[in-house]
Amino acid sequence: MNAHIEDFMTFLRFKSVSTDPAYQKELLKCCRWLQDKIESLGFHVERWEGDGHPALFASYLRAGEDKPTLLIYNHYDVQPVDPEEEWSTPPFEPEVREREVYARGAQDNKGQCYYVYLALKTLLERDKKLPINIKWIIEGEEECGSGSLFQMLKDPEKRAKLKADYLVIVDMGMHAPDRPAITLGVRGISTLEVRFQGSKGDLHSGSHGGITYNPLHALVEVLASLRNKEGRIQVPGFYDDVEEISAEDKQLLSFEFDHDGYRKMFEAEATGGEKGVPPAERGTIRPTLEINGIAGGYAGAGFKTVLPAKAVAKISCRLVPKQDPDKIAQQVGAFIKKHAPAGIKVEVEELSHSPACRANPHSAAVKAFSQAYQELFKKPCESIFSGGTIPIASALKEASQAEILLMGFGLPDDQIHAPNEHFGLDRLEKGVFVMTRALEILGKSH
Amino acid sequence: MNAHIEDFMTFLRFKSVSTDPAYQKELLKCCRWLQDKIESLGFHVERWEGDGHPALFASYLRAGEDKPTLLIYNHYDVQPVDPEEEWSTPPFEPEVREREVYARGAQDNKGQCYYVYLALKTLLERDKKLPINIKWIIEGEEECGSGSLFQMLKDPEKRAKLKADYLVIVDMGMHAPDRPAITLGVRGISTLEVRFQGSKGDLHSGSHGGITYNPLHALVEVLASLRNKEGRIQVPGFYDDVEEISAEDKQLLSFEFDHDGYRKMFEAEATGGEKGVPPAERGTIRPTLEINGIAGGYAGAGFKTVLPAKAVAKISCRLVPKQDPDKIAQQVGAFIKKHAPAGIKVEVEELSHSPACRANPHSAAVKAFSQAYQELFKKPCESIFSGGTIPIASALKEASQAEILLMGFGLPDDQIHAPNEHFGLDRLEKGVFVMTRALEILGKSH
Repeated sequence: MNAHIEDFMTFLRFKSVSTDPAYQKELLKCCRWLQDKIESLGFHVERWEGDGHPALFASYLRAGEDKPTLLIYNHYDVQPVDPEEEWSTPPFEPEVREREVYARGAQDNKGQCYYVYLALKTLLERDKKLPINIKWIIEGEEECGSGSLFQMLKDPEKRAKLKADYLVIVDMGMHAPDRPAITLGVRGISTLEVRFQGSKGDLHSGSHGGITYNPLHALVEVLASLRNKEGRIQVPGFYDDVEEISAEDKQLLSFEFDHDGYRKMFEAEATGGEKGVPPAERGTIRPTLEINGIAGGYAGAGFKTVLPAKAVAKISCRLVPKQDPDKIAQQVGAFIKKHAPAGIKVEVEELSHSPACRANPHSAAVKAFSQAYQELFKKPCESIFSGGTIPIASALKEASQAEILLMGFGLPDDQIHAPNEHFGLDRLEKGVFVMTRALEILGKSH
Repeated sequence: MNAHIEDFMTFLRFKSVSTDPAYQKELLKCCRWLQDKIESLGFHVERWEGDGHPALFASYLRAGEDKPTLLIYNHYDVQPVDPEEEWSTPPFEPEVREREVYARGAQDNKGQCYYVYLALKTLLERDKKLPINIKWIIEGEEECGSGSLFQMLKDPEKRAKLKADYLVIVDMGMHAPDRPAITLGVRGISTLEVRFQGSKGDLHSGSHGGITYNPLHALVEVLASLRNKEGRIQVPGFYDDVEEISAEDKQLLSFEFDHDGYRKMFEAEATGGEKGVPPAERGTIRPTLEINGIAGGYAGAGFKTVLPAKAVAKISCRLVPKQDPDKIAQQVGAFIKKHAPAGIKVEVEELSHSPACRANPHSAAVKAFSQAYQELFKKPCESIFSGGTIPIASALKEASQAEILLMGFGLPDDQIHAPNEHFGLDRLEKGVFVMTRALEILGKSH
């Protein structure tokens, strides 16, 4: 395993931050390294180029036409690292502490990508072949909206190549280390940037306070009006396409939310979202609207008596099935423009969007992965929903015409998208086991 | 004049940003330079040390006991410079373009301090003496609350030294270059920093959105609730001590607000503050509550799907006579704490505060300065109110037992506290004239 851990560390050292153009070369280097690794397994690997960072498409089709084809999805790009000062060790200098690897991407998604690689390598070394046909797509833009891959999925030739019986998105998690789970649904997303401008330049708050409309004040007023006291989103039409929760989903989400555990893990209270809706539903199958960032004026040390010229906010909505991300972005943008006070110039930029996605809980792939988890953990595998978004999941499902399934070994306290992201070496090993076994079971089921 | 301009440039090159501890040495260097200049005039100069940056106290008392004593106030510290990228030339590398000097502090307050120096130098070189007794206090903490000087003003010995007949605060401005004016009042101020925390660390907005309360969302909700749709501040008790505007003040402020000029100068609309109150009143003798900065989450390039652990806001209230800055700060802080949603930890830090200050419009000093302005501009000198705050004005007035007056050659588009601050060389000359003449007139009036 030691050589593999060294290899994994190399993977983590690439600063593959896809949202920031400054890291473009790092993404290319990371992609090349990954391509070499997968080619060394005997896979045929194509580099798919779009407008942004390339994706890798790898295939092994020697299991025979009577065997099913599984399309596996991972990504090699990572989130930005700020606030960098809050990292105990540098985000791109992976370090193992108590069998946890600390680095940006350790879990999301390099760790989860790496155990797929190890599982394929293990099977090929042991059996000299794979039990089913494998297609593997690894993109470089998951953390910035998957723009290139979305484009590629419009290409008929690429769609044909992606065709598969099953699709597994390996970017998910479990509620706890001892609770095996596969994921039956992810939320969609719409993200926006909102810019409020009140004047040409910053103004003195003494000379101008009370005269002109402070864009920061306008911004907080409009943002506050997006939700009411009950946590209901006030944008007209926002809930129009939200369906009632099904009895089956309701059953899966009827567990007692662990408030003490949540408090202990995050030092946070589960007091957000819609009043009267259980946290397990609020966090997974109900839509949200959240402010992800605000900047304006001077908020550093000391005080600056300024009325800023501009204020900016980043907003995201998490969406459920049937909600159209484009329509939601337009509705939110229109609401913000409509409610901005006179004297404030408003710009709304729609950033990325992607719809929610749901799995068929009765597919052979769901059964194979469930069984693999059950063998490893000696207990039934749970079916869960994720509150997160895999922007490409719906589109890949549609392009591949495959039955989707989502899985992974993430845990709620892995600190993904935050400082000190980490992933356990034990989970790397478990990932190899589950992936290996699921492929074997799927091979025998046909 | 050229040697003087070079000298002025040297003064501007000191990075005397008082609110940021990083610049402490620059403030000391600036103070030392200034002390040398004033001692070279034949003044007795004392450096007054407090907990923060030192103040200079200079005196020339050779005009005789039958002559009045004028206490002059300036400050050598400046505001921070960010956003630095919006400066056309570096803020501490002064440059003259079309007879305007561009630099941080060019107007506020180094420019206004420098013409006082030049006026005293001119009189002493010409007459070998000054027509009245002069005391001159130049502090280094005006932009961060004047903490040290406030402390010094509690010292009986220093209070005795400051005793004067008149006090002139040379840190003000005029409505337009051709409208001579002295200032009869400034607003007070209370500033606060508010910190909202929702969780130990940043959280993923997919996994936690809808579950926990986003502190950025909590912050905008509470900040928005501080004012209603009519611009009225909703903090209980905020207006309790606000007096009706007097007929005399109302008369002075009854001029037509120049909406076109405002638009042209600032590309801003006068749509802020209390609905139904004229802009001239809103901007000078009515109290305000403004957000001066917000930071939280990720607002840079791209998008980060984060629920931030913390969000911070800076708030200032501009106050009118009778409003107690301490009481106001406590009321605003209590309102914010009371209205924060469950699950959010709130910290409120009261920063600086100072009361409003008003002049006696009929004092000999007001008359002397008005006459000096009238002689220079060949038109009557206006009496105006400033919306800004000179934190130390009330305290200096009280300590010196002097009749106060505020004046200066600032203009609304000088960009003080903002990028590209500037001051005209013509105004430097006018400042020298008015100061020189006012001292002469005051000397003859006694």
